[in-house]
Amino acid sequence: MTFGRSHDVADRIARLGTETAFAVSAEAAAWQEKGNRVYPFHLGDMNLPTPQNIVDAAMRAIGDGKTGYCPNAGIFPLREALAADVSASHGVAYGPQNVAIQPGGKPVIGKFILALMDPGDEVLYPNPGYPIYESQIEFHGGVAKPYGYVEGSANFELDFGALEAQVTPRTKLLVFNNLQNPTGAESSSDELERVAEFALRHDLIVLCDEAYWDIRYSGTSQSLASLPEMSERCVLLYTFSKKFAMTGWRLGAAIAPTLIADVIAKLNVNDESCSNHFVQYGALEGLIGDQSGPRRIVEVLRERRDAAVRILNTIPGVRCFSPEATFYLYPNVTGLMLRKGVASYDELRRAALEQTGVSFCTRLHFGRALPDESESYVRFAYSGIDVADIEEGLGLLKEWAEQ
Amino acid sequence: MTFGRSHDVADRIARLGTETAFAVSAEAAAWQEKGNRVYPFHLGDMNLPTPQNIVDAAMRAIGDGKTGYCPNAGIFPLREALAADVSASHGVAYGPQNVAIQPGGKPVIGKFILALMDPGDEVLYPNPGYPIYESQIEFHGGVAKPYGYVEGSANFELDFGALEAQVTPRTKLLVFNNLQNPTGAESSSDELERVAEFALRHDLIVLCDEAYWDIRYSGTSQSLASLPEMSERCVLLYTFSKKFAMTGWRLGAAIAPTLIADVIAKLNVNDESCSNHFVQYGALEGLIGDQSGPRRIVEVLRERRDAAVRILNTIPGVRCFSPEATFYLYPNVTGLMLRKGVASYDELRRAALEQTGVSFCTRLHFGRALPDESESYVRFAYSGIDVADIEEGLGLLKEWAEQ
Repeated sequence: MTFGRSHDVADRIARLGTETAFAVSAEAAAWQEKGNRVYPFHLGDMNLPTPQNIVDAAMRAIGDGKTGYCPNAGIFPLREALAADVSASHGVAYGPQNVAIQPGGKPVIGKFILALMDPGDEVLYPNPGYPIYESQIEFHGGVAKPYGYVEGSANFELDFGALEAQVTPRTKLLVFNNLQNPTGAESSSDELERVAEFALRHDLIVLCDEAYWDIRYSGTSQSLASLPEMSERCVLLYTFSKKFAMTGWRLGAAIAPTLIADVIAKLNVNDESCSNHFVQYGALEGLIGDQSGPRRIVEVLRERRDAAVRILNTIPGVRCFSPEATFYLYPNVTGLMLRKGVASYDELRRAALEQTGVSFCTRLHFGRALPDESESYVRFAYSGIDVADIEEGLGLLKEWAEQ
Repeated sequence: MTFGRSHDVADRIARLGTETAFAVSAEAAAWQEKGNRVYPFHLGDMNLPTPQNIVDAAMRAIGDGKTGYCPNAGIFPLREALAADVSASHGVAYGPQNVAIQPGGKPVIGKFILALMDPGDEVLYPNPGYPIYESQIEFHGGVAKPYGYVEGSANFELDFGALEAQVTPRTKLLVFNNLQNPTGAESSSDELERVAEFALRHDLIVLCDEAYWDIRYSGTSQSLASLPEMSERCVLLYTFSKKFAMTGWRLGAAIAPTLIADVIAKLNVNDESCSNHFVQYGALEGLIGDQSGPRRIVEVLRERRDAAVRILNTIPGVRCFSPEATFYLYPNVTGLMLRKGVASYDELRRAALEQTGVSFCTRLHFGRALPDESESYVRFAYSGIDVADIEEGLGLLKEWAEQ
């Protein structure tokens, strides 16, 4: 089979980004295959089983013949249950007409862009942040304008200076990832009010990526969409992946004003017809059935967070917040890099892997570094590693740092 | 929840098409809810169960923890098995590197367009044909140029006059749906050679939509990609939906030259991360396990085809081929419309539904009618209706036609 001709490929492909974190997974796997022990803090995946009641409900649905096509926006009972769930948590009166089921949370990003961004429109997006935002904005002809986060007293805070500096009359959309990947940042009520005021002042439509809404250890998640006048300009990214440990099942939803939900559902007809039929019955059980499964998942993750944060903060040159949500930690490693004499993120990452087996992503896997960045950060995910391995791996990292 | 603001929506959404056949489903359902009997010939879905060995394999995969993410291009054993299957049937040496697994066959259409078409490029596509081709071409800024089919002696034949008339130096892509929806058209060896010569002469890259490859009643399916010099310029659309009655499982693949397969796999990272993990183990069992399931599906469909064709050809003013592939019939109903004095497709469709309960799609559900069309056609799908109902429904249609 021949290779194909590169001149055949459309120009837009040159603007398509990817998740460079996959390269970290490949390097970790290669290192492990050479007979080394690897402590996988690079994974955004979960090593926890999907709750059995969800599995059973999906199986029953297959037996009931739910193996044919279903409506493009999803089965009605799931749209209804999800609207009720999100209405209760957000204090907004969503109905099934506001819900467009997707094969994962990720499709909401591309469909939000395709539905609302014209070529040349500017879109504010978090950097560091999930790299698919920037990729989809640029791929479809928009101008990606990054904003960042700064270290506050107890967690990262939005850099409003960057937001104000980047917004122009051509800015149409804001991508906002409260409960943030990779930083674990979570907006206070004050901060949310400032974001709402900013969005209203500049007439922005907002993608609220709330993928980690239910992965939280204390307090209550808050949404930008709950603030006055905001629900009509917010599209929520919902996913079943994290709360129910269903990453590989591929199911999520866009929750949006009716007109936008209708456009996204029409994109469904074009892109994939519908999401897997019987998986939606599993998700429905997840929403309305026994809740001990998702509670247990959060319990397990909390133990891991506590173990990881405790050890990281004893490592010389490392400073780490303990976020109340997400399964990520984003420690400042500026001191560690100085101490170990490593000049680049890649050098740090490779040295840690080869000296200790600890594998993680760095700031560069979440966007191009901005010109004024003086501090250095890496991301530890604890969704795919048990407490014993967290303790062992970070213990080795500490020994190496202390050498 | 407010409705949203129409001026927020991107301009490209005005160019987004849909499957208008869904409106026929809605009308049929409404008619049924009023207490009427409906004979569903409008459905492209199947009323047949997925073979049990496939269901069992997917279940086992859940038990084995295949509920997390998998590689963006699909699990390796499935890519390997599918490459082997398609290599054997096509006489082309495909390997796993040529296979990008998708959440359905449909995503291949949009990704083919995004990967290979620049705005302003012209794309030849079949009309009548699957309406998503035209929608995706125009949505992403291309120029959709239709070509059609003409009645031959035993089946529909490609209208080469239309192909030659529509091609220009700006034409880059050809969408070719051998074993065609809605006509059931299938190219002879001679016709395939002419298409290959045409594609080579105009340096076209071809989407070979082979969704119905394995739904056939005699003979052997043939692919454009099997002809000399063609595999390097063909992207195959493969789907598990029809052969294994897995429409609602949503699984398919793009099979392409390595460079194009890599681009499509990178689009996977952006659009949906990966396809459902455990479903891929079900599909793998479909490919390499017991083949009595797919054989039985074809047997059942053959009985339905024979029943439907036999009765349709006894209806005054109706003329119907008996294609050896697909589960569609595309009878010429010009005489019937004259006889019943109906002036439009919609009038025919509604009269048939209300007088006989027989529900079907018409030529208009597969594209805008071309200026020079003098004959009238409707599409009967027999994938979702049993033989007894086919006989009863078409019997009533015959009585009505004869009145």
